[in-house]
Amino acid sequence: MSSQSLMESETEESSSIIESQQKIGLPVIEELVQRLQKHPPYFASTIARGSSDHAAYFAKYAFETQLGVPTSSIAPSVHTIYKSNINYKNGFVFAISQSGKSDDLIECMATARKKGAVTLSIVNELNSPLEKESEYFIPLNAGKESSVAATKSFIASLTRVIQLVAFWRQNQDLKNHLAQLPCLLSQKNSEQYHSALQLLQHEKSVLTIGRGFTFPIALESALKFKETCGLHAEAFSGAEILHGPFELVQKNFPLIVYLQKDEALSGILKLIDKFQEKEAKIIAIAAENIIEENKNLLKNTTVIPTAPSLDSLCDVVTLIHRFYPFAAQLAHLRERNPDLPKNLNKVTSTI
Amino acid sequence: MSSQSLMESETEESSSIIESQQKIGLPVIEELVQRLQKHPPYFASTIARGSSDHAAYFAKYAFETQLGVPTSSIAPSVHTIYKSNINYKNGFVFAISQSGKSDDLIECMATARKKGAVTLSIVNELNSPLEKESEYFIPLNAGKESSVAATKSFIASLTRVIQLVAFWRQNQDLKNHLAQLPCLLSQKNSEQYHSALQLLQHEKSVLTIGRGFTFPIALESALKFKETCGLHAEAFSGAEILHGPFELVQKNFPLIVYLQKDEALSGILKLIDKFQEKEAKIIAIAAENIIEENKNLLKNTTVIPTAPSLDSLCDVVTLIHRFYPFAAQLAHLRERNPDLPKNLNKVTSTI
Repeated sequence: MSSQSLMESETEESSSIIESQQKIGLPVIEELVQRLQKHPPYFASTIARGSSDHAAYFAKYAFETQLGVPTSSIAPSVHTIYKSNINYKNGFVFAISQSGKSDDLIECMATARKKGAVTLSIVNELNSPLEKESEYFIPLNAGKESSVAATKSFIASLTRVIQLVAFWRQNQDLKNHLAQLPCLLSQKNSEQYHSALQLLQHEKSVLTIGRGFTFPIALESALKFKETCGLHAEAFSGAEILHGPFELVQKNFPLIVYLQKDEALSGILKLIDKFQEKEAKIIAIAAENIIEENKNLLKNTTVIPTAPSLDSLCDVVTLIHRFYPFAAQLAHLRERNPDLPKNLNKVTSTI
Repeated sequence: MSSQSLMESETEESSSIIESQQKIGLPVIEELVQRLQKHPPYFASTIARGSSDHAAYFAKYAFETQLGVPTSSIAPSVHTIYKSNINYKNGFVFAISQSGKSDDLIECMATARKKGAVTLSIVNELNSPLEKESEYFIPLNAGKESSVAATKSFIASLTRVIQLVAFWRQNQDLKNHLAQLPCLLSQKNSEQYHSALQLLQHEKSVLTIGRGFTFPIALESALKFKETCGLHAEAFSGAEILHGPFELVQKNFPLIVYLQKDEALSGILKLIDKFQEKEAKIIAIAAENIIEENKNLLKNTTVIPTAPSLDSLCDVVTLIHRFYPFAAQLAHLRERNPDLPKNLNKVTSTI
């Protein structure tokens, strides 16, 4: 057995990071939220790249379902390449970034602020150029991240988004769940990944599936499989997969499916049934209670159980927290170093 | 040589469809545009699935760059599953659909209208339930589409979006280019696909790349490769590919790259250079003049030329119009019927 990768040890730090977030940054969140409650924005827009963009996609679902604010992703090229004159009046624009140093994100933030948006940056590194361009700043507080593949900074982004929603809605349940998360994440799960790892050891293609809140972590998982395992993984929502991508699902085609305890669950279970009919190789990642309650439906499915479910938003954190070590171990099995991909660097510049 | 597929013959109808769109639907466009010019919306949102969602993504770029209106995609699950109470006041919401019959799109449209948006549906079939739920309606006018893989309805969606922008901005150049498109598309291109087809005949994975306006057609191409060729194709923007997916690009890894004559071109050419360094197999699809002007940079790249460039928006139409017959011929070469995928039906219901 090889020594633990940075990808695994940095994932393990998530628990104490989430705990620290409950103390650091709160005055800014309260000041910002009071302003947004007083003058509700007509829309929100996100600025992010790579893994941070998946956290921004999670923010879109969270803002639309919990706050009723339509939320869009800003494609940086509309500003950096096409020099677009977008009117951001009455909008709330926020960026998520690990380094806060990408030129394209900085340019988008500066434009949004100039064009009238309330602006926020959520960045891991302090005193970054991105922080300086935005009116409000909240640190991720994830500490130095050395692995090329982001893990703890992604999880810290998700929890900052949940925290923002919890304060904006004054939702005490959500605040309580955030407080429970560190303990849940620090518990070692005795069930290991052996059978799921074997299923993917020699594969070249895989699809990752989520629905609603879990779709952003399907995106994140697909990116991590590419980065660390050289495996062509692609994410689809449980809704879109039947529009075309289903053509790939033949006998033994591998799929990773995320299950969460909310209104999306029954549709995802029906999808798994369709995949089982095709005799696909299915790996389900879900809270142990969801797996237990649906064990008959999952009889031809390899399961990776997580801690019990808190709520749909916080479940997303426990699900991806369980996925990262799995990806790191799969990389080892495929004779790769998950911390040092062959073609990639930690800071990516956009061409 | 097999007889021509429906996918190819329906693509060929695009020319006369675009011509017909210049007469049909204009009074509605003018009425709608006058209202939107008088009360500019603070944001726009799109409702669509599958290929139509790629046309909606093109609309996002076109609206943001040409009209300055921030535009988001509505994930139907926020309404159908999470019953979200989104405030659409001061928004412009439009749906794109071939059949206009999908329950989830209809539910989103009804909610957006009730919650205060100006609503438009752009649908191919007349008297659809979606049309009835929206205040304004413009027909795609693409005629009956029999192939499971959408082609002419996608192209007709792109041109309706361009038409909407041309009228909204009162942009006479854009109107003139739309008028030239039918003639350009009806010209047979003597250069055939042979060498590009051979490159992909036995591949299992491919990435498709666009930047800015061409990113939505990279998405559309990836979907078509899956549907018709059983080929795991995935789209990335030229910006995002260096954040992770680049790890897949090893020697002989196949890539399709779209080039357009605008500010995105130099970045895309730099990317091609990076792919050439890795000795990847690269296929570039571009206007013949762009290929000619950059032939030294493209010396290790297989090219598929289209008609000369009109402008970045209309170029997207000529590019995808050239791609569809390529995908159909690749399907034949891989011993598949492009019109009859194994797992798919024409109308897809969301689970």
